[in-house]
Amino acid sequence: MRTLQLDLGERSYPIYIGTQLLGNPDLFTPHIHGKQVLIVSNTTVAPLYLDALMPALDGFNVQAISLPDGEAYKTLDTLNSIFDALLGYRFNRRCTLIALGGGVVGDICGFAAASYQRGVDFVQVPTTLLSQVDSSVGGKTGVNHRLGKNMIGAFHQPNGVIIDTDTLSTLADRELSAGLAEIIKYGLIRDPEFFTWLEDNIDRLLARDPDALAFAIERSCRNKADVVAADEREGGVRALLNFGHTFGHAIETGMGYGTWLHGEAVGTGMLLAADLSARQGWLTSAQVERIARLLDKARLPVHTPATMDSEQFLEHMAVDKKVLDGGMRLVLLKDIGNAIVTGDFDTKHLRSTLDAAQARATN
Amino acid sequence: MRTLQLDLGERSYPIYIGTQLLGNPDLFTPHIHGKQVLIVSNTTVAPLYLDALMPALDGFNVQAISLPDGEAYKTLDTLNSIFDALLGYRFNRRCTLIALGGGVVGDICGFAAASYQRGVDFVQVPTTLLSQVDSSVGGKTGVNHRLGKNMIGAFHQPNGVIIDTDTLSTLADRELSAGLAEIIKYGLIRDPEFFTWLEDNIDRLLARDPDALAFAIERSCRNKADVVAADEREGGVRALLNFGHTFGHAIETGMGYGTWLHGEAVGTGMLLAADLSARQGWLTSAQVERIARLLDKARLPVHTPATMDSEQFLEHMAVDKKVLDGGMRLVLLKDIGNAIVTGDFDTKHLRSTLDAAQARATN
Repeated sequence: MRTLQLDLGERSYPIYIGTQLLGNPDLFTPHIHGKQVLIVSNTTVAPLYLDALMPALDGFNVQAISLPDGEAYKTLDTLNSIFDALLGYRFNRRCTLIALGGGVVGDICGFAAASYQRGVDFVQVPTTLLSQVDSSVGGKTGVNHRLGKNMIGAFHQPNGVIIDTDTLSTLADRELSAGLAEIIKYGLIRDPEFFTWLEDNIDRLLARDPDALAFAIERSCRNKADVVAADEREGGVRALLNFGHTFGHAIETGMGYGTWLHGEAVGTGMLLAADLSARQGWLTSAQVERIARLLDKARLPVHTPATMDSEQFLEHMAVDKKVLDGGMRLVLLKDIGNAIVTGDFDTKHLRSTLDAAQARATN
Repeated sequence: MRTLQLDLGERSYPIYIGTQLLGNPDLFTPHIHGKQVLIVSNTTVAPLYLDALMPALDGFNVQAISLPDGEAYKTLDTLNSIFDALLGYRFNRRCTLIALGGGVVGDICGFAAASYQRGVDFVQVPTTLLSQVDSSVGGKTGVNHRLGKNMIGAFHQPNGVIIDTDTLSTLADRELSAGLAEIIKYGLIRDPEFFTWLEDNIDRLLARDPDALAFAIERSCRNKADVVAADEREGGVRALLNFGHTFGHAIETGMGYGTWLHGEAVGTGMLLAADLSARQGWLTSAQVERIARLLDKARLPVHTPATMDSEQFLEHMAVDKKVLDGGMRLVLLKDIGNAIVTGDFDTKHLRSTLDAAQARATN
């Protein structure tokens, strides 16, 4: 087992990565302070892993709730169903929530923990590659609104993150690739050595080689933990983690939540951001090509949706959280492994990037 | 104008108390960092005071939303209507919300500010006596759930609290009395000298003597600010502010939100807590009589609802947030001006208190 620490003063917590962690009480019980535990999972994950988790919670009053599966259910209504359960079981403010599932489960469960009785404890047990390398670490929680993704939420750090890589054995290929998009992101924004490693090892990752996956997860979590420790509430450097996300959110909103997986949208969004960076003269076309090749090898979409035009992109990008007082700011690349947040780009180039993408998508 | 400071490190903020404050830009603009302002009010208060507020916000992009009036609308659905407005106006994370209204408006608006894009700024402009002396100060925000009051929310401190006592001129008598209940509470839990002052000046307060009201508001806010500064997230001493609230919440839940005003329920709840304290041998019956007399003079109900029996009280009290792992803890009085949080009371006495109250109520 590998253990990382996310350093946030009194809100610090460990991240465990390994096999056969799910049923291990030694990993769970130090993070549970009351007697009441609500496991929040979904209808796909609960049948697969709920039983495996239970031995870790012997002696607690354990209840469970299964949410419907999918980004389309990341709503205030689903959130309220968790409150219904918590109040129905008369859970008090010393209860602990455990998020067992992917990013949607983790985000909703985390926001429920942030809001129930103004804040209770929770533990992240991510079961998808994407949630293991990204959303389970760092305390961003929330739900979507029909007018924008992740527009309602809270910063609420978990007491611990328990990543059992055995859960990846049942993950759909498409979900695996979606996770690889966020892994590739860390290479692109701050870890060029890792990017090269990914180019060399992408086939092993796709073949679900346990050692390769464990290495990539740990390296990703370390990158994420370093960034979050430096800027918990996204006043500065944490915004770099949104690389590809402004474009990606536009795809998710434009296509309707859940049509594209978050990681797929981010993958294509990173390529658009790289294309814009090249038009700014910051990347070479050879570098953009390297990025496109790695995404393609990771079986991620490299074309934007054929049904979305530039106007739709701009419309949906403008409501993105990264918009400050009307001036759009984007995360762009100065080099592979070196990202910046900037409003200082040529909007003509942005339009060219979107027009060119549309032309490729409809060819 | 009187100015208090609530000391919470980097979350410190001022509380202004005076007349003709509503339209004063000098009080508002230092607390607004972006250009976008959403005023959240309700259908009763907006027609009375929205126009008076506007001159303070010259030069900002100001929008306003009117919520339906009343505790019954303190729900996730109403909260979502604020998000609809914020996203409809494309407000970004540098926007500021202004709560113009009573406790319900302040609590919902504050929770919207806590949750919109994971947290934006807000300013409290309380217009009822109760919100001026209690809910606008201290950062507790949230909404009700059908199974419990204030069960969903966040700690989110405002950037400032602007208390214009002119707004009390339009307050209904019943709302004025409800505010007096929370004022009396500060005397009972930690300020015996203030309790005596209230006994001597209750008629001036009911006559809305401006000097008496300003004094009582400032003294109450100072008591509240001191307690919150010592224990922002209610790990200890802040729980004393819940004096009367466990009983009161039971009344509010049992009767349906909004049937009794919060302050009315708290007033009766304080008398029940005092009665229990006397049965424990901690208060004399003369002291309980003093409390009952002051509440009665303040035109607050001194009897519990005739339709609620002891079982209903206990049922609704058990879901209250002050319940830790099944053992009920209550705020009780060791003396007038000296409250404690304790689970160490005789449950037979609790039942006697409730049975006696029921007997009085149905006579």
